[in-house]
Amino acid sequence: MEQVVELKYALDTFYFLISGALVMWMAAGFSMLEAGLVRSKNTVEILTKNVGLYAIACIMYMLCGYGIMYGDGSGIIPAFGMLGADDNEAAAVIAAAAAGAEDAPYYSNLSDFFFQVVFVATAMSIVSGSVAERMKLWSFFAFAIVMTGFIYPVQGYWKWGGGWLDQAGFLDFAGSGIVHLCGGAAALAGVLLLGARKGKFGPKGEVRAIPGSNLPLATLGTFILWLGWFGFNGGSELKVSDVGEANAVARVFVNTNMAAAGGVVAALVLARLWFGKADLTMALNGALAGLVAITAEPLTPTPLLATAIGAVGGLLIVASIVTLERVFRIDDPVGAISVHGVVGIWGLLAVCLSNPEASLLTQLLGTGAIFAWVFGTSLAVWFVVKLAFGLRVSEQEEYEGLDLHECGMEAYPEFTRSE
Amino acid sequence: MEQVVELKYALDTFYFLISGALVMWMAAGFSMLEAGLVRSKNTVEILTKNVGLYAIACIMYMLCGYGIMYGDGSGIIPAFGMLGADDNEAAAVIAAAAAGAEDAPYYSNLSDFFFQVVFVATAMSIVSGSVAERMKLWSFFAFAIVMTGFIYPVQGYWKWGGGWLDQAGFLDFAGSGIVHLCGGAAALAGVLLLGARKGKFGPKGEVRAIPGSNLPLATLGTFILWLGWFGFNGGSELKVSDVGEANAVARVFVNTNMAAAGGVVAALVLARLWFGKADLTMALNGALAGLVAITAEPLTPTPLLATAIGAVGGLLIVASIVTLERVFRIDDPVGAISVHGVVGIWGLLAVCLSNPEASLLTQLLGTGAIFAWVFGTSLAVWFVVKLAFGLRVSEQEEYEGLDLHECGMEAYPEFTRSE
Amino acid sequence: MEQVVELKYALDTFYFLISGALVMWMAAGFSMLEAGLVRSKNTVEILTKNVGLYAIACIMYMLCGYGIMYGDGSGIIPAFGMLGADDNEAAAVIAAAAAGAEDAPYYSNLSDFFFQVVFVATAMSIVSGSVAERMKLWSFFAFAIVMTGFIYPVQGYWKWGGGWLDQAGFLDFAGSGIVHLCGGAAALAGVLLLGARKGKFGPKGEVRAIPGSNLPLATLGTFILWLGWFGFNGGSELKVSDVGEANAVARVFVNTNMAAAGGVVAALVLARLWFGKADLTMALNGALAGLVAITAEPLTPTPLLATAIGAVGGLLIVASIVTLERVFRIDDPVGAISVHGVVGIWGLLAVCLSNPEASLLTQLLGTGAIFAWVFGTSLAVWFVVKLAFGLRVSEQEEYEGLDLHECGMEAYPEFTRSE
Repeated sequence: MEQVVELKYALDTFYFLISGALVMWMAAGFSMLEAGLVRSKNTVEILTKNVGLYAIACIMYMLCGYGIMYGDGSGIIPAFGMLGADDNEAAAVIAAAAAGAEDAPYYSNLSDFFFQVVFVATAMSIVSGSVAERMKLWSFFAFAIVMTGFIYPVQGYWKWGGGWLDQAGFLDFAGSGIVHLCGGAAALAGVLLLGARKGKFGPKGEVRAIPGSNLPLATLGTFILWLGWFGFNGGSELKVSDVGEANAVARVFVNTNMAAAGGVVAALVLARLWFGKADLTMALNGALAGLVAITAEPLTPTPLLATAIGAVGGLLIVASIVTLERVFRIDDPVGAISVHGVVGIWGLLAVCLSNPEASLLTQLLGTGAIFAWVFGTSLAVWFVVKLAFGLRVSEQEEYEGLDLHECGMEAYPEFTRSE
Repeated sequence: MEQVVELKYALDTFYFLISGALVMWMAAGFSMLEAGLVRSKNTVEILTKNVGLYAIACIMYMLCGYGIMYGDGSGIIPAFGMLGADDNEAAAVIAAAAAGAEDAPYYSNLSDFFFQVVFVATAMSIVSGSVAERMKLWSFFAFAIVMTGFIYPVQGYWKWGGGWLDQAGFLDFAGSGIVHLCGGAAALAGVLLLGARKGKFGPKGEVRAIPGSNLPLATLGTFILWLGWFGFNGGSELKVSDVGEANAVARVFVNTNMAAAGGVVAALVLARLWFGKADLTMALNGALAGLVAITAEPLTPTPLLATAIGAVGGLLIVASIVTLERVFRIDDPVGAISVHGVVGIWGLLAVCLSNPEASLLTQLLGTGAIFAWVFGTSLAVWFVVKLAFGLRVSEQEEYEGLDLHECGMEAYPEFTRSE
Repeated sequence: MEQVVELKYALDTFYFLISGALVMWMAAGFSMLEAGLVRSKNTVEILTKNVGLYAIACIMYMLCGYGIMYGDGSGIIPAFGMLGADDNEAAAVIAAAAAGAEDAPYYSNLSDFFFQVVFVATAMSIVSGSVAERMKLWSFFAFAIVMTGFIYPVQGYWKWGGGWLDQAGFLDFAGSGIVHLCGGAAALAGVLLLGARKGKFGPKGEVRAIPGSNLPLATLGTFILWLGWFGFNGGSELKVSDVGEANAVARVFVNTNMAAAGGVVAALVLARLWFGKADLTMALNGALAGLVAITAEPLTPTPLLATAIGAVGGLLIVASIVTLERVFRIDDPVGAISVHGVVGIWGLLAVCLSNPEASLLTQLLGTGAIFAWVFGTSLAVWFVVKLAFGLRVSEQEEYEGLDLHECGMEAYPEFTRSE
């Protein structure tokens, strides 16, 4: 019997670690997606940004973020245990299970930290694409420190740490709000202060396409994210070790996959009808939109409904990207504000379609609270960073590319046409 | 005791899901392989094709394919349960195990669907490379709908659904026939109706090489497929939760890896002797050939025999690619008909080398049946699609590249030499 | 009870296989890293080298390496059992567990072989980057045969096979020494015999940068290696199936990740201060340095200490790459001697910071023994290969690129500027 308790603990821990590794892999996905969608002269910089932000996110979340989010919400002190890497004792695990304790520990605390730390990196990755091709690298890193150490953990505590949004009944299974809307809101704040890239909007107000330099990379990035999302959503069930939980994880995998498929088809068909072309970048963003849309509730829908939720995400993404650009004149080089922000909101509302415990009002409340907190604090932090270091590179640097000025090297020194 | 039954169920389900995620990852592998082996002017189109076909495969297999293949073979009705996402009840699982029932459920039905749905996407991915650089995108998608919803599931039912080939004793562990020969036969039918790319065969009948535009991508794709194959073959043992099954899965992993290694070395050495060069594309196709060859029986060979089976696959692939091109004048840009079709047949026959239950005659029967069904129905469907929408783009479009005409964008707008 | 023993066996085997698959994936990581850091005219060759060496490593390790390393150290005979694929019988596993035997088998022998075989491929991959852009392909393969079949297994036996270094108390959890220093020492021997690339050092002795041709690929390769390292270190705990082991694996995952993060930040900041730029290649090498540094002891440090160990690795790597180039005039195109050799030594010494069982003297002894053995035998083998086939391509071939001469094709035929 004791061995069975230990074995369950081992399986749940292993499941957490594999899920976390898949989410860590999403860092590569964002890097490739963003590197593929910017111009070659800004590619090294965005790669540096993505590698650097992942490292910063891990360190800041260890130092204080995890303590804020899963401690008592009051700050970094509760993280000290984690820093010392205390973990559950076998005897305590067995005793708690034997006593049938409600809160019996059933997986390693450190596996939980690993799973959570890759989530905060995901949220931060969302921001990097939107501010691409014009923001100073080290200003971005400064923002990343505050975002991953403070802004994200506070709203994460509200829901997943057991804070007021959780008590209010707000539902967000794997983070359409906590992760994706959060990233989208921080990105929006940055973009508003930063302004559009030179040449994005013409003198007569016309919108100009700035094509990405390497679409196979962007496609690879999307597939990496799609794969990683099985860890992102699948791991968020938090347990796999009995029949009910195993079935739940399986359903989450199926629904995650179907929503992405629905997003691809919807975006591809809409783009074909609207623009007359099978737009690859819309198909890729359609997949991501499907994934973001299902993230708030990948468990209760049937696979058919999951496909539909993803498909609506796919339609939304095409409309949102066009609207943000043409109507609001917001320049988001990779469409991250639409994919993660706008579709994140759709995901939070779509919980009501299948989960009887969801209330539309509470979902709206949570959406508003997350957006207000993240957008407000981000705007303040971006503003302080702007005053302190400046946000935007010089016109000359933007024209010549950030790679030479920030990183001192070219991404493809032998390929690009001499300009 | 009940907890042990549940825990086994959880482990087998988790193993299925991880295996399925690895197979899903093969979609990225095919995308990168094919994008690397075509010219840059057709790269966006083939990426769009691969993303789109994966989504179509998932949706069609959910709507009717799974019902045909694993229902009673009579159509879509049996899929409705899956659409509603019914799964095994814990009580029923425990009771059946206690009763020692032969057909006791031991993993989540939805995890099975997930594993199966990524297989059909694999079969479809095989086709896309062979028809590259000249087929209309939406005609391909039309074919994909029928292939994944009907053609593949019917022959899948024959073997894995318990149909007549299974009852006849035909052996195909993970699908050298059901998946790879199936994909190769459908590709062959398409290529025959479609014809060669402009310029592939010169006016005097000489064969001209059309080099792939990005060989690192093709190499990455091959490694992705190699990794994914551990899920493809490893998951096809269908169970891992006792000593015998765990040993079996381990042997499948080892043999899968050794066969690929054998294929690489054989193809590399043969290419060196024949062409005088260490031909990278042959080495990559050698790895894939080794993998396809071992897929029909990765369990019973010793690792040494597995290496040999893969090596024969590696020799075959070099000979087959050259023969198809020079003798039969078939233009297959990525060599998929050889890798998956010709070597798939070798894999089906090689079962007889180590599995005492195999009969050469039955293996030949199965080979013939799968080929006849898939080739025949595919030819018919391609023909109908040709009549309805046309299969081939115009000469002008082929010359300028499918990317601009079908997708309205370039894969590498800053890299390619102005032509 | 028996079922529990079997289930534990299954979980530990599955954990081994998944870990091994992640390590196999590192072959793709090295391929992309190296392909990104060389010039485009040598890209096909280095891809061919990486695919080929992986295949050779698998075959040689099966034929004799595994027998040398985990047999009685006396040669290939003990491998024959593995070649026949004998594995543990369920009855024996259960009986040994019931008897509480110390050496009760608890995972599949073949899963162990799979895990070990991908390690030797990793060690060999380290070499390929250092000798890039000037070594003959088939001479490299000749060396790979001896390295993977004999040189690596002998020193692997010393520690992991239970040989004299193990008995002396030398500690090397996952191979900072056995794998990374080993690869670095073999690379150093090769580079010394081979000499620098033409044009690396100017006529007045100045060092010239030779920029890598595709930095997104190099970044992708780094992320792949980072992901694979969770299998590399995580799997080296060798067991996951009880509370203590599950906690240990979780801590290894966390520390592996934190060390890489520490390496990135340290290398990025040092490069910024030293060179004035956020040097992406230093950030990537910083991540790898952090990973190499923690590999000798990823279990006993706290996450905070792991971050620091990785950060020291990140500082070391910048200093080492510059020193090797400027002071010792060693031309190592990808920095592998620094990353794996120099930082590997740091990792071996850093064991003493957290593991009370470590002795600095013994760690130094092990470091010296591994280096002396691998460097000495490698030098001899490289020398014999040089006499027999020559090591270096002709000046003409080096100038025109190895791709055309060795492989007969270009990596990017449509992209590169006509020269």
